[in-house]
Amino acid sequence: MSARVFGLGVGPGDPELITVKALARLRAAPVVAYPAPERGPSFARAIVARWVTPAQIELPIRMPLDGARFPAAAVYDAAAVAIAAHVAAGRDVAVLCQGDPFFYGSFMYLFARLAAAHPVEIVPGVSSLGAAAAAARRPLAARADALAVLPALLDDDELARRLALCDAAAIIKLGRHFARVRALLDRVGLAGDAVYVERASLAAERVLPLDRVAADAVPYFSMILLHRRGAAWR
Amino acid sequence: MSARVFGLGVGPGDPELITVKALARLRAAPVVAYPAPERGPSFARAIVARWVTPAQIELPIRMPLDGARFPAAAVYDAAAVAIAAHVAAGRDVAVLCQGDPFFYGSFMYLFARLAAAHPVEIVPGVSSLGAAAAAARRPLAARADALAVLPALLDDDELARRLALCDAAAIIKLGRHFARVRALLDRVGLAGDAVYVERASLAAERVLPLDRVAADAVPYFSMILLHRRGAAWR
Repeated sequence: MSARVFGLGVGPGDPELITVKALARLRAAPVVAYPAPERGPSFARAIVARWVTPAQIELPIRMPLDGARFPAAAVYDAAAVAIAAHVAAGRDVAVLCQGDPFFYGSFMYLFARLAAAHPVEIVPGVSSLGAAAAAARRPLAARADALAVLPALLDDDELARRLALCDAAAIIKLGRHFARVRALLDRVGLAGDAVYVERASLAAERVLPLDRVAADAVPYFSMILLHRRGAAWR
Repeated sequence: MSARVFGLGVGPGDPELITVKALARLRAAPVVAYPAPERGPSFARAIVARWVTPAQIELPIRMPLDGARFPAAAVYDAAAVAIAAHVAAGRDVAVLCQGDPFFYGSFMYLFARLAAAHPVEIVPGVSSLGAAAAAARRPLAARADALAVLPALLDDDELARRLALCDAAAIIKLGRHFARVRALLDRVGLAGDAVYVERASLAAERVLPLDRVAADAVPYFSMILLHRRGAAWR
């Protein structure tokens, strides 16, 4: 059987939120690849650090992760070449993906480069959406709710038009966009029922009403959850 | 330490897509509750069947699951009373939730009844969204995509207005709504790029173009994934 690439969702941050399947694939893989910032540790690797062994070859894929710049295609090109070389040599490669590989993840760029020529298996993971809802102790959506997932970098008009049509929303990847998004929610009357969640499922997790958030310290891994109709599930 | 209620996401269907945390909580719980149809087996219990032991007390919560009727509040009232009695007697109760407990799940109705008076911990799970994207081998959303999650029971006008504003969409819980939704997607020019996914992550999983789907045999656990702008991640 030829070697394979695995896109492994490792979940939102709590190591125990990895799936049984992803953990088995990780442990069995001789090569472990993961996104990492240009300098410093990888969040995806940190999630599974307790299970990575010295016998595994590590392949950090270093690139901008803050969303401010589109990651360079050249980084993915080079990473795909390196992964393909391991597969050609008969070594499975586990690519770690925080959250779910196909939910706003970077794995899709590797998938686009590798899937035509190599066997690629995707193992879905717990996304930050579910983890944030659990942290906030409020359901994302129920019954006939239309749920909108909106990246915070959309401009005010794009956000407002979509918020007007949804029952529930998650505004993700807040970072430096927080103050603008909070002001918009104030203007459209949705701030009161919204909640801010930071680093869901990690020890540093925080859940706050919007007016308690220090806008200059909002990380990329944060989101606002809101529900236009209030508590539809009660 | 007082006994607790656990809302455990057990994932979309493949037993190995349960998280390490949910599995540990399930194994440790003396009481296991789960939604079930009025007659017949529970999907949530089937997912974890290999780990349930005869020593565990089972508490099926029997109710309509097909979405055609809103589950009776009386069923949840009675289930909450039964769960609370176990907790009061010092027994942890694991409530099994297919997918993620707070993503269109029935657990939220128990949570609303139990959380004020009892310790409730929510363990997020892999949702059908991530599993369907993995099955279809196409990313749900990337970068600045606005992603809409739309229950198929919304009427044509509600669906069309929301589809017009999103970049990517998942139309969930298709069942008897499939033929109407497919006709709508044909009218608005979105059917070509859409894909149908049934029972994602299970052995019976199927992925089909819309025109290959037999509308009279579409289960509730199915969805359509589409992306208005095509392959934004390539």
